[in-house]
Amino acid sequence: MSVENERIGFIGLGIMGRPMAMNLVRAGFSVTVHNRTRAKERPLAEAGAKVAETPAEVARQSDVVVVMVPDTPDVQDVLVGPRGIADAAHRGLLVIDMSTISPDAEREMATVLEARGSDLLDAPVTGGDVGAQKATLTIMVGGKRSAYERALPILQAMGKSVHHVGPSGAGQSLKLCNQILCAVNMLGLSEALLLARRAEIDPQQFVDVLGGGAGGSWQLTNLGPKIVERQLDPGFMIRLMQKDLSLAQALASRLSVPLPGTAAVQQLYRGLEASEDGALGTQALILALERLGRPEPNRSS
Amino acid sequence: MSVENERIGFIGLGIMGRPMAMNLVRAGFSVTVHNRTRAKERPLAEAGAKVAETPAEVARQSDVVVVMVPDTPDVQDVLVGPRGIADAAHRGLLVIDMSTISPDAEREMATVLEARGSDLLDAPVTGGDVGAQKATLTIMVGGKRSAYERALPILQAMGKSVHHVGPSGAGQSLKLCNQILCAVNMLGLSEALLLARRAEIDPQQFVDVLGGGAGGSWQLTNLGPKIVERQLDPGFMIRLMQKDLSLAQALASRLSVPLPGTAAVQQLYRGLEASEDGALGTQALILALERLGRPEPNRSS
Repeated sequence: MSVENERIGFIGLGIMGRPMAMNLVRAGFSVTVHNRTRAKERPLAEAGAKVAETPAEVARQSDVVVVMVPDTPDVQDVLVGPRGIADAAHRGLLVIDMSTISPDAEREMATVLEARGSDLLDAPVTGGDVGAQKATLTIMVGGKRSAYERALPILQAMGKSVHHVGPSGAGQSLKLCNQILCAVNMLGLSEALLLARRAEIDPQQFVDVLGGGAGGSWQLTNLGPKIVERQLDPGFMIRLMQKDLSLAQALASRLSVPLPGTAAVQQLYRGLEASEDGALGTQALILALERLGRPEPNRSS
Repeated sequence: MSVENERIGFIGLGIMGRPMAMNLVRAGFSVTVHNRTRAKERPLAEAGAKVAETPAEVARQSDVVVVMVPDTPDVQDVLVGPRGIADAAHRGLLVIDMSTISPDAEREMATVLEARGSDLLDAPVTGGDVGAQKATLTIMVGGKRSAYERALPILQAMGKSVHHVGPSGAGQSLKLCNQILCAVNMLGLSEALLLARRAEIDPQQFVDVLGGGAGGSWQLTNLGPKIVERQLDPGFMIRLMQKDLSLAQALASRLSVPLPGTAAVQQLYRGLEASEDGALGTQALILALERLGRPEPNRSS
């Protein structure tokens, strides 16, 4: 059977999953979808996908199942919960978990599926909703080499840069490293940009002059201008970054790696979540510094 | 008088100043040099520069004086100390301070020189010793527009990217913002790279896969490979970065800007300085995290 003839299942049709599944349909794969909120299946059904009642039902109708849900417990529900994929896992089934979750939990589930003759790859992504729509995601894959090679044509329909980075869990671990870089670089950007503004430097010159030098970063070039223009909508939500940074800290705790910069960002985002700003984009970190550095308006009351 | 006929003085012939002065000589300017350690004047004299006994003597023989010394007190010595430039400042003298120092101190010295009919520009640089040698520095200039325009052909002989960023002190303020970006991005890089290594991710894949994405930065692309190959020599010395970060904190304190990420880096570098590692390059930050996360070998003794 040629890989293009593999029947694909897709579970999780949110901001990321929906355009990713759509790209598989457009690439000519036979796709069966399922989403906890069933109404979200409709646009995929209209584009030609089949729908299934449960993750187990998706697994029964598929050779390869892609999972794209928010957090570790969601993946555990879909894979090993009641009416989950493991219930219907068959010899030769390949499951590709593209969610960002705990690498340790991923490895445990891989063991459960392997006992049933199925493979589990972790394949988290970066590139955001725009990357999901344009099929330009970077995909970091952990798991067996043979399973990676089988998954490759499917992953290439969703991303432009696909890498096998190690055994089960390695994709998740590297994704968490990426989130540390994004978060701490955003902290540096927020500190420097706020200082520049208070020192009466034109913030556009800050972006233009420093972006090309040793202080340059993707965060500065892409999110610096949004901060300058006060566009604080996501992009990538603070609430989801907090989830990822907690996963990074859990991994780092097990491996005895201190993450002081990451911890500082988490505390500042915690303050923003307390002010109900957790649905803003990660670039809203500058609000936390502004509030720390502002006199309390009601101190005398 | 055409700008190319301006007589240039150059004070401070260290790792940065020496190649910068050499580039002025090569560009055909008439250059008079002075260095506190007089022996360092010799290579410039051999290349055709005149030498002078004191900063005041340099000022007497020059239309424009460039200063490139380590720290605020050094600039104060050269500009307003005994036998300093201010002693011999003449109407129309232009002083260009390319050192990285306190923006507030810079403004004060600009006032002193202005009272004598001289102009002071602050024009700190980024791009390191390689940029100084190849005349590819980025130069951030604060001060009067007319003085900037007069300085431009001189600065263009030393750098490839020259920007007027505001009034006196603005060049220094923006340079300090750049150092915050470099330092905090290095913190994120150190945390993520150490976590990747302990999670048994190939560090070269870390650099290759993450460098092109949202976690990418100049620090990752240029210093990541050095960390991987354990090349911890400078580049830019921890000790000098500490000086710059202290200047950033002083400015931020006056402007009520909290810099928690910068503070974390300073504390970690302080630990390295205590272990006599202050002469390593900034990428040695990872040593501080490694030491924090390592069991104490002599705990039982």
